[in-house]
Amino acid sequence: MEVLTVTSTLKDRFLEIRKNTERICSSLEKDDFSTQPVAYVSPPKWHLGHTTWFFEQFVLSEYKKDYRLFSDDFSYCFNSYYNNVGDRILRANRGNMTRPTIDDVFNYRRYVSQHLSEFLDEDLSADILEIVEIGMQHEQQHQELLTYDIKYIFGNQPAFPALETNIQLQQEIDNGFIEINEGVYEIGHKSKEFCFDNELGVHKTYIHKCKIASKLVTNGEYIEFIEAGGYTNFNLWHADGWDWVKSEQITSPMYWHKHKGIWMQYTLKGLVEVDLNLPVNHVSFYEAWAFAEWKGMRLPTEFEWEVASKQLNYGQLWEWTNSAYLPYPNYQKAEGAIGEYNGKFMVNTMVLRGASLATPKYHCRPTYRNFFTPDTRWHFSGIRLAK
Amino acid sequence: MEVLTVTSTLKDRFLEIRKNTERICSSLEKDDFSTQPVAYVSPPKWHLGHTTWFFEQFVLSEYKKDYRLFSDDFSYCFNSYYNNVGDRILRANRGNMTRPTIDDVFNYRRYVSQHLSEFLDEDLSADILEIVEIGMQHEQQHQELLTYDIKYIFGNQPAFPALETNIQLQQEIDNGFIEINEGVYEIGHKSKEFCFDNELGVHKTYIHKCKIASKLVTNGEYIEFIEAGGYTNFNLWHADGWDWVKSEQITSPMYWHKHKGIWMQYTLKGLVEVDLNLPVNHVSFYEAWAFAEWKGMRLPTEFEWEVASKQLNYGQLWEWTNSAYLPYPNYQKAEGAIGEYNGKFMVNTMVLRGASLATPKYHCRPTYRNFFTPDTRWHFSGIRLAK
Amino acid sequence: MEVLTVTSTLKDRFLEIRKNTERICSSLEKDDFSTQPVAYVSPPKWHLGHTTWFFEQFVLSEYKKDYRLFSDDFSYCFNSYYNNVGDRILRANRGNMTRPTIDDVFNYRRYVSQHLSEFLDEDLSADILEIVEIGMQHEQQHQELLTYDIKYIFGNQPAFPALETNIQLQQEIDNGFIEINEGVYEIGHKSKEFCFDNELGVHKTYIHKCKIASKLVTNGEYIEFIEAGGYTNFNLWHADGWDWVKSEQITSPMYWHKHKGIWMQYTLKGLVEVDLNLPVNHVSFYEAWAFAEWKGMRLPTEFEWEVASKQLNYGQLWEWTNSAYLPYPNYQKAEGAIGEYNGKFMVNTMVLRGASLATPKYHCRPTYRNFFTPDTRWHFSGIRLAK
Amino acid sequence: MEVLTVTSTLKDRFLEIRKNTERICSSLEKDDFSTQPVAYVSPPKWHLGHTTWFFEQFVLSEYKKDYRLFSDDFSYCFNSYYNNVGDRILRANRGNMTRPTIDDVFNYRRYVSQHLSEFLDEDLSADILEIVEIGMQHEQQHQELLTYDIKYIFGNQPAFPALETNIQLQQEIDNGFIEINEGVYEIGHKSKEFCFDNELGVHKTYIHKCKIASKLVTNGEYIEFIEAGGYTNFNLWHADGWDWVKSEQITSPMYWHKHKGIWMQYTLKGLVEVDLNLPVNHVSFYEAWAFAEWKGMRLPTEFEWEVASKQLNYGQLWEWTNSAYLPYPNYQKAEGAIGEYNGKFMVNTMVLRGASLATPKYHCRPTYRNFFTPDTRWHFSGIRLAK
Repeated sequence: MEVLTVTSTLKDRFLEIRKNTERICSSLEKDDFSTQPVAYVSPPKWHLGHTTWFFEQFVLSEYKKDYRLFSDDFSYCFNSYYNNVGDRILRANRGNMTRPTIDDVFNYRRYVSQHLSEFLDEDLSADILEIVEIGMQHEQQHQELLTYDIKYIFGNQPAFPALETNIQLQQEIDNGFIEINEGVYEIGHKSKEFCFDNELGVHKTYIHKCKIASKLVTNGEYIEFIEAGGYTNFNLWHADGWDWVKSEQITSPMYWHKHKGIWMQYTLKGLVEVDLNLPVNHVSFYEAWAFAEWKGMRLPTEFEWEVASKQLNYGQLWEWTNSAYLPYPNYQKAEGAIGEYNGKFMVNTMVLRGASLATPKYHCRPTYRNFFTPDTRWHFSGIRLAK
Repeated sequence: MEVLTVTSTLKDRFLEIRKNTERICSSLEKDDFSTQPVAYVSPPKWHLGHTTWFFEQFVLSEYKKDYRLFSDDFSYCFNSYYNNVGDRILRANRGNMTRPTIDDVFNYRRYVSQHLSEFLDEDLSADILEIVEIGMQHEQQHQELLTYDIKYIFGNQPAFPALETNIQLQQEIDNGFIEINEGVYEIGHKSKEFCFDNELGVHKTYIHKCKIASKLVTNGEYIEFIEAGGYTNFNLWHADGWDWVKSEQITSPMYWHKHKGIWMQYTLKGLVEVDLNLPVNHVSFYEAWAFAEWKGMRLPTEFEWEVASKQLNYGQLWEWTNSAYLPYPNYQKAEGAIGEYNGKFMVNTMVLRGASLATPKYHCRPTYRNFFTPDTRWHFSGIRLAK
Repeated sequence: MEVLTVTSTLKDRFLEIRKNTERICSSLEKDDFSTQPVAYVSPPKWHLGHTTWFFEQFVLSEYKKDYRLFSDDFSYCFNSYYNNVGDRILRANRGNMTRPTIDDVFNYRRYVSQHLSEFLDEDLSADILEIVEIGMQHEQQHQELLTYDIKYIFGNQPAFPALETNIQLQQEIDNGFIEINEGVYEIGHKSKEFCFDNELGVHKTYIHKCKIASKLVTNGEYIEFIEAGGYTNFNLWHADGWDWVKSEQITSPMYWHKHKGIWMQYTLKGLVEVDLNLPVNHVSFYEAWAFAEWKGMRLPTEFEWEVASKQLNYGQLWEWTNSAYLPYPNYQKAEGAIGEYNGKFMVNTMVLRGASLATPKYHCRPTYRNFFTPDTRWHFSGIRLAK
Repeated sequence: MEVLTVTSTLKDRFLEIRKNTERICSSLEKDDFSTQPVAYVSPPKWHLGHTTWFFEQFVLSEYKKDYRLFSDDFSYCFNSYYNNVGDRILRANRGNMTRPTIDDVFNYRRYVSQHLSEFLDEDLSADILEIVEIGMQHEQQHQELLTYDIKYIFGNQPAFPALETNIQLQQEIDNGFIEINEGVYEIGHKSKEFCFDNELGVHKTYIHKCKIASKLVTNGEYIEFIEAGGYTNFNLWHADGWDWVKSEQITSPMYWHKHKGIWMQYTLKGLVEVDLNLPVNHVSFYEAWAFAEWKGMRLPTEFEWEVASKQLNYGQLWEWTNSAYLPYPNYQKAEGAIGEYNGKFMVNTMVLRGASLATPKYHCRPTYRNFFTPDTRWHFSGIRLAK
């Protein structure tokens, strides 16, 4: 991993990131912090604790002299999937964990932020700085998940409560299709800025002539698909996608509700009428693919997307590609527990490219490889067509 | 249902009961109120809301002039299984309900208590008073469930937190076996005091000569059963019980943990060493039955128990009987939604008799028929032998 | 167990029973013998082998001098639930067992019948004769299950094939209701004829005045229940019954199909129109109970039924009672593997009384206690009302 | 699809293929034809019927004048996943279908073979000939599945029966690693011979320098992996792979049994000791990938494999690649029901390249793309390493 290491900025950035995480939770009541409505949605309390544990576990415990753990129990409570670091609470049971309380967790955050902040004043090796950087990137990734999870929790309350938030999709300008010429292109992260191991290994790839839409598919277009029977025509779907539609009884994007003949949509600002001009959000890969089939087009590959990215107007929603999440040639898994970060998810997942309105700014870059299983859609995810 | 109707007392009892429910929650943090670790454990918040909703739905909305609902949403949130009263949140989803907040629910309680309290000052018909009485009995039943559910929530925290509580099992005196003579006996509730519909229909039953233990089985006796291989000898178990032992990997009562060779037990006061002289608690019907098989004895029937009850020293733990929960001759289901209270559970459940330390005082009577499915054991339940 | 032991007859009866089992399979092709469409339906081959294994395991291997097992593998293949006798194939996997072939199994039957038949010419102790008797009773019970299982297998073929069979329900005469007087009655098996351990322990029971229908509920009456919305009115159902109706999407008795507005029914003679005058068959306990609720009546207890039995015209269909299957006072489980026969099923099951057209003649007696879980209905089961 | 159309050969090939299918079943008893031990293993009878139905449905019914269906029911019974062609029996229920009998199915095969054979004497259009060709390719694919399914059925019999078969793995010669130079290569099917739509769209791809093993991983090498704790070290596994190992309790390849300290293996010739020098068979993608991790190497991509194929000695076992099954650039799905053949499986599956000893000869070509989900391993599948 390449890391930019100007220590003075690092401390400021660290404190800013820590603050941002808590800012995302500003509309929450204590009651909202511990619930886990489905296995893949973690309680906000867990995110707050886990991002803190990461710094305590991989930085302070390892490198800071005389550091005393805030509490022995917290390691067990807030480990996520790092099997190398010891026992951990089962993912599906996170919502049972009412203790430590949210007040305790905020204390834990303060304690660790304070110690790490002091530690950053010391003269640290590049190795340590790299881990701090990863911890910050990690916390930023959780900021985005935190937004998704809060939306899920609130979107499943009978009263559809609204939050204070600046997140608001905008209409995109339609400039038709962008053309890519056939040829060999370079793919992967080149600069000295931070990136994840899965973006590294700059390499060549051969791309065939194709066209990529300048804008995301809108709600209006998606409603046409629904009204044309998109969800009932198995010819448009992958076999697994069709099974998913049937077993989950899917008939619209997530958070859509038809009320008295009108499509309503839960947003972070509450339940509102679906705006036909905005990009469609909260669709799974299966839905994105079926929509493209219906249009007689397809989804771009992640390589086509990366090549076209300079000409694209992106950043509102993550965009499903038709690329499976696989290692680049010469991909090297990082050593130790940090190595569990990416490589072990390189099967059964699809790549999303771009960024969303919930993405922290330093996570928005053309080589970033986001990934989810093809049935998920509680994240901010839209559709860009190719042909 | 027979009801005792001295109105002045009624209001006092009503307010006392409402206070007791909240007293049970006195050690809880806001974080603890919304979780539902397994489907059969309801969030404490739900109990607080549901018992309140019962009074609002069946008394105030029906009978109090110009009563205004506290909130339209609460009816949907806090209905339990009364299909006759409209839509309701699915039982397994109660733990997702972070809103209304616990503060809102306490406000709801105050509002309804206030209105009901005022209403009780009016000149009310016997019918209305009966429903109020049922509401109070209902809330008392939930008090006991609340204790069980809080214990389950706390007993599944990594740190095993302790509560403030007076609940403490005592050693019982062993007076050997009590004999019952063969003959015809009367069973069922006779006095004018309140009882549930399932206790009514006083009727005769024929009982054969038998002996019933004067005390409950102790932890010490139960550990002998464990050490003799009780959980690995299928000959001691019902076929369904054996399936349960295997699929749930049961090797001890609930809340027991073997730590460095010593049996520890989570109690409301925290994790303590198992006291050999105290009654064994948190066993399922399957375990109670298997233990009796191992002893070469059996469990009493609920009729034998009721006949013997005057001579028994009971009230620490509910006692599994070998009687299925079935209607008495001439059982009459109550009319309307209240009729959903008991009759519809009269299949696949077994009767427990007696009472527990968590039972509110007016629920402790010799004709009381408690019932659970044979695999449950998060309630306070022990074993009394017969032969 | 009481046993009638005239050896000469025993051998004749043994051979007759063995022949009858095979006669039930006379319409089957080789293809039909190995399938297990649901876990509770065993392949016909399994019944043929298992009933044979019982004689080999409990009689020949134990007592016959120099007896050589037909094959070592067969014991593993055809043990059912006798945990005491060693490993066994999992119940749900019986349908995977294509080997031994059905030809091998018929050879196995001949081999064991031959040896047992020779063995019966010796001078045998009462103990041995008792086990032979149990083996014959056991095979007869499997004859009835074999009929049920064959019906299930054929009733789930797309082409609804017909069998050669004499089984044909008849219209019953309606003599209104039979009255039983209040008082103490004796229950249980008294004669010296064979019976199962669960019928023994003659004992007294107190019965209250009641009335029992002289005939079973007809298809015509049941269609009224359906058309009155019986399957959509939760007030008529047990809580568990209602869950069953919803999750299994039950809208009629088993084997009923509505075709162009007409109720059709798969019978052993193929798919025929439902005859309104015949007794309704293939209903679960939940359905029987709901029907009785709808009629404002109830099901009889097994004790009321036994007392009334002399006056009843029964034997076409097993009749659901409202009695849970529980041990009689002083019930003694038989020793050893045979003891696994009955006692371990005495939880979560309901008693059926009477007999069906598929019941072998010596299994038709007023004290016989049949039992099934309340959701099953692939057996021949009807409804008799009480009030 | 490109098709070779010399009609005279076509008829001979057709009849030869039909015969081969039946030859694979030559060791089966009638009992073996109808069972479905797990959902993904189809009964042999079903394969025999389904491949026949394909010709009847897509050729004879469509194009042959005055053709009369063999039976109306067979279409329902033997449709597989062609949603476009109407209702079909649920995949998981195929094993319940004891009727039509295997004799009927052989009659069906003769009837359709006879009619199709006559039809091929007519002067047929290229379109029709193409569908016949696809039908033959389809039947050949099922021949391989038939071998897998028969092995699964026999490998799960308590007595591990042997079959008559020529299938026998051979030791491979180890010539070290083959090098591929960096550059642009052409991928995809070029000749006029038959291929599937997923191989078409010849296109360029950029390949980086790499090395590919000349031989498959042996049983001996795989046992080293097992003994080094390969199945207990989560660092070697994908997250999904690790879940699979835990939930399915995987500790060795499929069909392996450790008996008295010796690794035994069920083969089509019965249970034999594992031969250390033969290629390891019946591993999932997860296992192949974990083995490569343990070796510090990786699996080749399907493109590397295709480029190297001329130098490889392959054809004993299908070889897992690290490529997800995705469409080639300009992939065109075939029209109509035939279009359901490939494209809809292009998610959640991994590509296998090469061929196995069970592969019919015309299915063995370097561009052939086989695919399965990463957890399956009842097919013949081995491991080739790359670095």
